[in-house]
Amino acid sequence: MSNRIQIFDTTLRDGEQVPGCQLNREEKVEVALELEKLGVDVIEAGFPISSPGDFASVKAIAEAIKEPTVCALTRAKKEDIDAAVEALKPARHPRIHTGIGASDVHIKHKFNSTREEIIERGVWAVKYAKSFVEDVEFFAEDAGRADLPFLAKLTSEVIKAGATVVNLPDTTGYLLPNQMYDRITYLFEHVDNIHQATISMHNHNDLGLATANTIAGIQAGARQVEVTMNGIGERAGNTSLEEVAMILNVHKDLGYSTGINPQYLYPTSCLVSNMMGMPVQANKAIVGANAFAHSSGIHQDGFLKHAQNYEIMNPEDVGVPSSAILLTSRSGRAALRHRLSLLGFDFEKPELDKIYTRFLLMADARKMIHDEDLKELIG
Amino acid sequence: MSNRIQIFDTTLRDGEQVPGCQLNREEKVEVALELEKLGVDVIEAGFPISSPGDFASVKAIAEAIKEPTVCALTRAKKEDIDAAVEALKPARHPRIHTGIGASDVHIKHKFNSTREEIIERGVWAVKYAKSFVEDVEFFAEDAGRADLPFLAKLTSEVIKAGATVVNLPDTTGYLLPNQMYDRITYLFEHVDNIHQATISMHNHNDLGLATANTIAGIQAGARQVEVTMNGIGERAGNTSLEEVAMILNVHKDLGYSTGINPQYLYPTSCLVSNMMGMPVQANKAIVGANAFAHSSGIHQDGFLKHAQNYEIMNPEDVGVPSSAILLTSRSGRAALRHRLSLLGFDFEKPELDKIYTRFLLMADARKMIHDEDLKELIG
Repeated sequence: MSNRIQIFDTTLRDGEQVPGCQLNREEKVEVALELEKLGVDVIEAGFPISSPGDFASVKAIAEAIKEPTVCALTRAKKEDIDAAVEALKPARHPRIHTGIGASDVHIKHKFNSTREEIIERGVWAVKYAKSFVEDVEFFAEDAGRADLPFLAKLTSEVIKAGATVVNLPDTTGYLLPNQMYDRITYLFEHVDNIHQATISMHNHNDLGLATANTIAGIQAGARQVEVTMNGIGERAGNTSLEEVAMILNVHKDLGYSTGINPQYLYPTSCLVSNMMGMPVQANKAIVGANAFAHSSGIHQDGFLKHAQNYEIMNPEDVGVPSSAILLTSRSGRAALRHRLSLLGFDFEKPELDKIYTRFLLMADARKMIHDEDLKELIG
Repeated sequence: MSNRIQIFDTTLRDGEQVPGCQLNREEKVEVALELEKLGVDVIEAGFPISSPGDFASVKAIAEAIKEPTVCALTRAKKEDIDAAVEALKPARHPRIHTGIGASDVHIKHKFNSTREEIIERGVWAVKYAKSFVEDVEFFAEDAGRADLPFLAKLTSEVIKAGATVVNLPDTTGYLLPNQMYDRITYLFEHVDNIHQATISMHNHNDLGLATANTIAGIQAGARQVEVTMNGIGERAGNTSLEEVAMILNVHKDLGYSTGINPQYLYPTSCLVSNMMGMPVQANKAIVGANAFAHSSGIHQDGFLKHAQNYEIMNPEDVGVPSSAILLTSRSGRAALRHRLSLLGFDFEKPELDKIYTRFLLMADARKMIHDEDLKELIG
């Protein structure tokens, strides 16, 4: 099995359906072109049947994108697939993403159906999509809570029908990483034809475990991951593209690779955040404002002695200008001396100790200490 | 081994040291009282030697808090421990948290020391702290990257010296969950006296894996978790209290329990976010504004049929007023009809279809559709 992990970006589909995140056609094309530069393998461009605007956007993205596969979402319905086929016509590498609920709760309470009928409808949808395009991905919605032997049978049948990718979403963000690992391992052991398709992870973050579940899925054999920039998406969002890409990058010993150019992670994060009006919290991994900021005295001292004491990545690697040493009342003498030296002042003990005592009183009162405050401090 | 997980909250120490998050004494006491109400077992109140303001805050919290243990951080230094002893004097249940770097990169580049000397200094610090208080926690900083046989020896020696808790932080947020599980399992297999102390997790979120690593640590035998509200903390932050608490709550079958009252999770999150000026992103698990919001047509239709189709928790359980059905161009007829009925209008097909077509054109143009827009739409 290849260890190249396919990055399937759904920022423009699962991300864009979030309250307030809707983009117009021009904006979507701009994001798609940025994702192509970042090096994603698949761009899920939208859900064409959902609205005329979304249909037009998928078509515009299909026209604009050269390298990545352009994918459109459908339910297991004729009119959905027809709309996707039409919207994807200009695509160089089109993919239809169709599927249906696979857990008993979805089968009963959403589809008022039976397991047998769900397999029939899934197989039909794959075959119908396959009559238009070669590359057909099947999603088994709520696979995370589905009965495993049934999920194995469904997976086997849709691969037989021609699915090139089988996506097993943890739609409600329910699973623990070891459970995900065990479930995917079960499928690899019980689905005869599983190696004829790529298994895909699409995990939601309701319990804060989307990234970990995605990595567990890769370790069990999944070779595609469905992710969004900044982890946006329904409810608590999807798996963060930037987290998965950097985990595989930092843990090179695992032997997995992606086509992502990490230098574009931070610029792409900023573009998506600004365009969608979805602020990224300061303590967001990789792309948050504080992700590479050191503030406590212990950390600043250690960082200034040797960056690797507190950093496993260089901020420059992901396109962030540089690590930041920020001064607060939790900062120590090492950080204060460092910042003063950047301002052109070199103090050694005992003078530094005196300035530090005055600094702490000021910092207890003012929270953040800026360069202007320091100049005031040393008078 | 007990399956009661101790919740050690470090919002006021590791969280408060973040740029811009500094609180004054009164604010810190207010947060500490809220944490007591939430049901945490230990409150890490600060780092008394770091500044006069922080010393005074730890003392004030020690005076105010009744049930939880109040903990103060120190380096493995006499002056640090003396300051902590002094600040903790009013505490009903005081704990000193002392420690030193344990990875070779920290030993060499931060302490310019040797493994042997590190053990000596750690043992000395535990014994010195133990001469003042019964409850002494030892942290082996950067344990996540430390040599395992050395970490086992260090753990054994500090327990022999009297440590009641041994904290093994993944300081740089480096490990994968399966690696964390294997490392903690190794220690349980190789440290003879490990059952005489509680093993604690303190994981950072640099790769987005803090929560998953903490759960993996629990599964391997850790019985204390060091967490913050909203996951704030150095760089990409710490493990989120709300995520760990709800994982153990949703996965009751694992058999772990905590003293957390989930009803106070959302109010406490809001208090900390507002007081520290640290916005929580909309797609943050459990406490983000969209954590229980459903927007796409497929999801809204499924949610309205049966909430468990898309929810594994009730928002009310964590103190969030209720699930939200938000209208955008990704919404379907089911959500539109639901929202119209809340406004007092009941439409059925074919009239609903006509309104829906006009709704989509409006939604493509306006992003979010509010009640006023709906009234305009049905004119």
